[in-house]
Amino acid sequence: MNKLQILVTNDDGVFAPGIRFLIDVMKEFGQVTVMAPNKPQSGVGHAITFADPLKIKTIEKTDDYQEYSCNGTPVDCIKLAENIVYKKRPDLVVSGVNHGSNASINVIYSGTMAAVIEACIDEIPAIGFSIDTYSSKVNLEPSRQYIRKIVQGIIDKGMPQDICLNVNIPTTEEIKGMKLSRQAKASWREGFDSRTNPRGEDYHWLTGDFVVNDEGKDTDLEAIKNGYISLVPIQVDLTAYKAMEHFRFLEA
Amino acid sequence: MNKLQILVTNDDGVFAPGIRFLIDVMKEFGQVTVMAPNKPQSGVGHAITFADPLKIKTIEKTDDYQEYSCNGTPVDCIKLAENIVYKKRPDLVVSGVNHGSNASINVIYSGTMAAVIEACIDEIPAIGFSIDTYSSKVNLEPSRQYIRKIVQGIIDKGMPQDICLNVNIPTTEEIKGMKLSRQAKASWREGFDSRTNPRGEDYHWLTGDFVVNDEGKDTDLEAIKNGYISLVPIQVDLTAYKAMEHFRFLEA
Repeated sequence: MNKLQILVTNDDGVFAPGIRFLIDVMKEFGQVTVMAPNKPQSGVGHAITFADPLKIKTIEKTDDYQEYSCNGTPVDCIKLAENIVYKKRPDLVVSGVNHGSNASINVIYSGTMAAVIEACIDEIPAIGFSIDTYSSKVNLEPSRQYIRKIVQGIIDKGMPQDICLNVNIPTTEEIKGMKLSRQAKASWREGFDSRTNPRGEDYHWLTGDFVVNDEGKDTDLEAIKNGYISLVPIQVDLTAYKAMEHFRFLEA
Repeated sequence: MNKLQILVTNDDGVFAPGIRFLIDVMKEFGQVTVMAPNKPQSGVGHAITFADPLKIKTIEKTDDYQEYSCNGTPVDCIKLAENIVYKKRPDLVVSGVNHGSNASINVIYSGTMAAVIEACIDEIPAIGFSIDTYSSKVNLEPSRQYIRKIVQGIIDKGMPQDICLNVNIPTTEEIKGMKLSRQAKASWREGFDSRTNPRGEDYHWLTGDFVVNDEGKDTDLEAIKNGYISLVPIQVDLTAYKAMEHFRFLEA
């Protein structure tokens, strides 16, 4: 019987602790191939690289395991793995574990989730994992049994068409369980630390505060706050069907 | 009475013909401020810049009109304009006219639409315009009356909360009208032109074919093909509510 072909990627780069942990968990489920950026690519969203050529570096290659890095974005990683390494589609894509939450509006900026969405566009079941701290020292062990359960569940029951899964993990040592959630409404506000350089030119560092505009109890932020792992099904069809009628006057 | 404050951006860069045309149209509607990338940023998606500082260059500044470029992405442009230039939110954001279609799945890779989505997250009415050719020589004049109609319509009737608009224009000289559409299902396939450099190292140029997996007559691609401008309402909440039940077993 052929082993399940599993592609692992992330946006923190191939040597981040989060991906090392995820690789370790995924080896229980099948034959793992890693294609990840050679440097951190947080906040690159769904960027692709077409003005520069991409290069792949082989880090490890055995009969059971292949690990590569490249100079591209997380979305490039999916494309390179499919086309250059597998020359077909893998059976499953997992991305992460990202150091930093991709709950709420962060899903839109996230390279980790962009890789997942790219795989979903290519009709590969795909799951993104993130933990609610930027610290690379966080203990990921409490999440292991839940990652196992999610991966086994998707292998057994499949993924609905054009849907992928955004999983966010709280930092608590005792995770209470998992909660299906919706994406909380929030935004990043008030954004720049402005300075003047010795030549008198202004420059601006992006900063900002995360502002939550959502009092719902069914959101991903609420789940994480209460010690649960949040599970948000994500769709690649951005059409706002419910808003369609509002614009009908433009057709006239 | 205060004039409507309109922010114009794009992802092809501040000197692209598409944005020059859009600026010209928008001056009829209010006080225009331009903040656009200083170089092409196609395909950067929702990327943001936080590892490098951003710089703003003033191109023109009069009582009636301000034009700036910056070294950031389209999403950075929205953040810079709001925080550094306006120090508040503008009344309307328009992005484009992009040289190249952002219909169908292209909305996810598009810097033009990322700027629009960013404005939408910040609760500013926002519209992205793209034309179905990469040529910068295309005649945009046939679209002028439709862009006017859309902008006036949104000024008059408003934009639903957490919704923005993705407008794609056919290249035909005689546009037949406008059609409310859904995002067509499609993907980019078979992606690389692989070569070997004189040092014997492989490198890969991203290419690919656009493959449509959708026979629906109500899609944006179908509207454009038939000579209509497609209008797709876009939502920033990516939650796949309809798929929620599928994953309920994971909560157990």
